[in-house]
Amino acid sequence: MKLAEVKAMRRRAAGLLDRAGIVLSREEKDAIEVSDFGLGDVKRLGLLVVVYENNDRYCAKEIVLLPRQMCPEHRHPLISERNPGKRETFRCRWGTAYLYVEGIATPRPKAKVPPDYAPFLTVWHEIVLRPGDQHALPPDTLHWFQAGDRGAVLSEFSSSSVDEHDNWTDPRLRRLPEID
Amino acid sequence: MKLAEVKAMRRRAAGLLDRAGIVLSREEKDAIEVSDFGLGDVKRLGLLVVVYENNDRYCAKEIVLLPRQMCPEHRHPLISERNPGKRETFRCRWGTAYLYVEGIATPRPKAKVPPDYAPFLTVWHEIVLRPGDQHALPPDTLHWFQAGDRGAVLSEFSSSSVDEHDNWTDPRLRRLPEID
Repeated sequence: MKLAEVKAMRRRAAGLLDRAGIVLSREEKDAIEVSDFGLGDVKRLGLLVVVYENNDRYCAKEIVLLPRQMCPEHRHPLISERNPGKRETFRCRWGTAYLYVEGIATPRPKAKVPPDYAPFLTVWHEIVLRPGDQHALPPDTLHWFQAGDRGAVLSEFSSSSVDEHDNWTDPRLRRLPEID
Repeated sequence: MKLAEVKAMRRRAAGLLDRAGIVLSREEKDAIEVSDFGLGDVKRLGLLVVVYENNDRYCAKEIVLLPRQMCPEHRHPLISERNPGKRETFRCRWGTAYLYVEGIATPRPKAKVPPDYAPFLTVWHEIVLRPGDQHALPPDTLHWFQAGDRGAVLSEFSSSSVDEHDNWTDPRLRRLPEID
């Protein structure tokens, strides 16, 4: 990604967080993580994240999704005897998000997936998250999500976050951003 | 506490959370934890808590403090080899809170402590938390806090919460509420 695009994404994320009533410091706004997973299509496949805390015991973030932006399918596998994989809880603060997890596929799911990404989505059990709704995921289970038409802000509470260990269904993806 | 008083506290907590822009479900509003630490003086010494998640790895809560309500001094000690005591991060979402931790005592602290509680406060290093401010505490360190004149809403991110292990400086206190 070009730095100008990263900055534009940060501004849009800060705007949605503001609408959600979430206050960030100037430094936090400037440090919003922008990931396009290496595909250069951040508005459709991307993730905007504010990390409040990530230590060896717990992690807390805000995840911002622009309208219909999606986070691709992945799981958080076992890392060591002390870390059986990241366990996480999503809580919707603003907007609507469609979360897909392992289980019986939902007929007529509400996500609108670009055809080029559909082959890499294998779980289709839909959970709709609106403000005040939350859902917890066990470690090492597949999941992906997309915002509705207005975007979404989700709080993520979890065990330690070690993104470089994530397994992505689409083998082209990488989590850590590269900024030109 | 009488059930009527608990319900009145829950309503006031829900009102402050609403002003902070935090959305709760009906069930969550009805389950807000109200603790008076056994002293029957909840408006001055009390804690109002929404627990979003508390599992064997992490915990996430909202803490609501009414105007000038205080949480008494305590620490989260080592519990076992696997749990070296609760580590926690407070993030202010709304209002103002004065957090006191170990360190050099702050001259002219902003807390207004009722004289009957002052003898049980031994740490006086002040950290002022306004919206967007946060502070992390290592395990087993003394701390207490009080809201400013409008009250406060703090998000607490932490390792597992096992309140019954907490150590209170005031030996009269107990954490788990008793409702008549």
